[in-house]
Amino acid sequence: MNDAHLIRILRELLGFENVLTATDCMAAYLADWRGRYRGVALCVVRPATTAAVSAVVRACTEAGVAMVPQGGNTSLCGAATPAFDGRSVLISLSRMQRVRALDTANNTITVEAGCVLQAVQERAAQAERLFPLSLAAEGSCQIGGNLSTNAGGVQVLRYGNMRELTLGLEVVLPSGEIWNGLRALRKDNTGYDLKHLFIGAEGTLGIITAAVLKLFPLPRATATAWLAIASPTLAVRLLSDLQARFGASLTACELVSEAALALVRKHIPGAHPTLSASPWYLLIELSGGSDDTAQRDALTAFLETALDEYVLGDVLLAQSGEQARRLWALRENIGEAQKRAGPSIKHDVSLPISRLPEFVERADRALEQAFPEIRIVTFGHIGDGNLHYNQSKSAASENAAFLAAQPEVNRIVHDLVHELGGSISAEHGIGQLKRMELLRYKSPVEIEMMRAIKRTLDPRGLMNPGKVL
Amino acid sequence: MNDAHLIRILRELLGFENVLTATDCMAAYLADWRGRYRGVALCVVRPATTAAVSAVVRACTEAGVAMVPQGGNTSLCGAATPAFDGRSVLISLSRMQRVRALDTANNTITVEAGCVLQAVQERAAQAERLFPLSLAAEGSCQIGGNLSTNAGGVQVLRYGNMRELTLGLEVVLPSGEIWNGLRALRKDNTGYDLKHLFIGAEGTLGIITAAVLKLFPLPRATATAWLAIASPTLAVRLLSDLQARFGASLTACELVSEAALALVRKHIPGAHPTLSASPWYLLIELSGGSDDTAQRDALTAFLETALDEYVLGDVLLAQSGEQARRLWALRENIGEAQKRAGPSIKHDVSLPISRLPEFVERADRALEQAFPEIRIVTFGHIGDGNLHYNQSKSAASENAAFLAAQPEVNRIVHDLVHELGGSISAEHGIGQLKRMELLRYKSPVEIEMMRAIKRTLDPRGLMNPGKVL
Repeated sequence: MNDAHLIRILRELLGFENVLTATDCMAAYLADWRGRYRGVALCVVRPATTAAVSAVVRACTEAGVAMVPQGGNTSLCGAATPAFDGRSVLISLSRMQRVRALDTANNTITVEAGCVLQAVQERAAQAERLFPLSLAAEGSCQIGGNLSTNAGGVQVLRYGNMRELTLGLEVVLPSGEIWNGLRALRKDNTGYDLKHLFIGAEGTLGIITAAVLKLFPLPRATATAWLAIASPTLAVRLLSDLQARFGASLTACELVSEAALALVRKHIPGAHPTLSASPWYLLIELSGGSDDTAQRDALTAFLETALDEYVLGDVLLAQSGEQARRLWALRENIGEAQKRAGPSIKHDVSLPISRLPEFVERADRALEQAFPEIRIVTFGHIGDGNLHYNQSKSAASENAAFLAAQPEVNRIVHDLVHELGGSISAEHGIGQLKRMELLRYKSPVEIEMMRAIKRTLDPRGLMNPGKVL
Repeated sequence: MNDAHLIRILRELLGFENVLTATDCMAAYLADWRGRYRGVALCVVRPATTAAVSAVVRACTEAGVAMVPQGGNTSLCGAATPAFDGRSVLISLSRMQRVRALDTANNTITVEAGCVLQAVQERAAQAERLFPLSLAAEGSCQIGGNLSTNAGGVQVLRYGNMRELTLGLEVVLPSGEIWNGLRALRKDNTGYDLKHLFIGAEGTLGIITAAVLKLFPLPRATATAWLAIASPTLAVRLLSDLQARFGASLTACELVSEAALALVRKHIPGAHPTLSASPWYLLIELSGGSDDTAQRDALTAFLETALDEYVLGDVLLAQSGEQARRLWALRENIGEAQKRAGPSIKHDVSLPISRLPEFVERADRALEQAFPEIRIVTFGHIGDGNLHYNQSKSAASENAAFLAAQPEVNRIVHDLVHELGGSISAEHGIGQLKRMELLRYKSPVEIEMMRAIKRTLDPRGLMNPGKVL
């Protein structure tokens, strides 16, 4: 089947307006939002139903053409951009936006892959329920992408990542067959739990079209604090005490370095003015129950006893929702501030929480030795052992040369992560960016198992080639 | 390779005393604890290390002999008993009992497959941590079996089942290769998450030899209540209100029917005497924090406002740990009481929580029509949508004939479960017992995916044949 023939078939299936071939129409789909990756495709298709996705996959498979599924196109690793010089069709799931069901007694919501994360959060809130996945891109990322990368974010500490929030999936397999695994059950031990193969597979084993997600009671009370702390070692100890005292009420614990906060102060207008400097900060949030004052009082009492033991500096306890939002903005604007400060080398790593302090100390030292005047911007989800550990040069003029050293910087950071039993991709996935790193750090036994699974489910290798494996 | 040659090799590997061939020595391994299944094996081997398991698997694979892994032998579905008339070796993991690591800052424990569940709970408690998996067989079941069946129990509502409690695995693959996936990370998005293939696979894809499990802060305060409630409909509504009020502090919510409690009253000496009869009961437990009195007061206040709305009958609130244990004994002794009352037909089903009341009503009615004088014993983990829905005849003398009707009883129950979007095995697995049921209710697409995975990882079909698929 030649290209023109395939495009004709796809137009018959989806209508002319949902098969884009003009360069200008396709442009937004063929580059990632950071402009790091650019790909080619025969066309961009926009099916609106599972049956239509199935028909598209059958047509592409018959034509021997590769497929690249895409949601909100917010990948940080180039997972949704074609990485393949051969013939491929980009399949945008963004028209699949239905909420198929919401069951408050079962605490589940059934949504299609193209639903924007924030829309799902809002739909849940209307029903007085919480859908807890929350991350910077929530206004544009889509559920299918959240599933395919097993997204994390700021509430994993309490609620788990996307994998743990998922009860069931609907997937279009590489054969075009539809697997209906949309079960809304907390317990189901009937054979292999296949949904876990597709979650985090970045579209390389099939196309997720819908999911049953867990909902939670909407917490009515929160307490939010920002505090200055001397070191990651103390932060890890404080985290442990917070968990012992507050259990599942501790819903966020974010670590921020002074270098990260300084970028926010410099580049984001209106950042909170009353903070004095400290090498490190923690943003802590309790939620649950229905009494804001009781939550705040409990956190205040805890922090008062902790002040001396943990050598805390400033402690800011939000007295209103507005104050809490301003504290969160300090954390959430780090990414944007970093972008405004110029390009940087990013690492999304995780470690056993007990090894975090050693990692920060040794990685900082090794990088400072190799690259004098390096600027290290460290922040992340300390409660999950997940750090965003980013580097640039302090003078913007030196950054271009520094970026050429990315492989060397990666090597120092990732080798240490590996030595300490960590992961080189905590929540962003592999995509195109870390394929070679994966081969370096995974055991041959594990790589071969992954390849065997890939060959079994996608024997012709047509699903999102050039990603992960 | 003939049998004698294989046994000689195994003895060289493990020592004479760890390769059992005498009928009387093997007997305990070749039948399940309920006496429902009985199998044959060339020998029972007891390796003590991962390397020894690997060597055994290589030898068996080379000889083309099937392998049946076994932990505490507490399966309710015959999963750990040979189901295969051909040549097989039973591999007992019970000598692999080491706790390899305990990391309180990371809240993880690394244990070998043969560790008894209760020993892991106790080791965690010594370190002031909770390992929350808790089920009736905890004094004898082993971690490898808990993983292979994705065990559930009474705290899934808060902490999840075994799958959700597991961060990493070590597995001996059918080739004899060792996969070291013992990562102690909350976040790790580096390719396919292979551990989920082995969890719940009942030993059909490889032999789990060790795992990294999550620990939690040890809750210092609990509040336990037993209350009489008129119907499952009201119980589901009360559950929803309890979750809205107490969130993750609600760690157990168990439903018990009067028929189930009556068996405990009749067959278990010393069962709590002060309860008046009601069609249904709920056992509720809050835990977390450090103040027993505060927990009890909060639960009391909630139940006082719920008394009228939910038409509650007796409400017993435990005033001490001893009283709480006596309330729990009412729930935990149901299985034993049922056994003393004679054989019964058991179903371990789950449903969307919103469909539980309809299921109970329709299943009771259909069974009572088909089998007059049937005794239906219903209890389970309502917070997880999981019911143990068991049947016998009210007169013991009629039970033998009734048991012959098991296929008909199963059909009525399982067809309704399937119609309502439920699972025919919530937490016990498939084993030998439900293989044919699995084929009846799973879609051909799903069965074929499972078979393809099985062929890929175990191409010669030597791992625990006759189970699951």
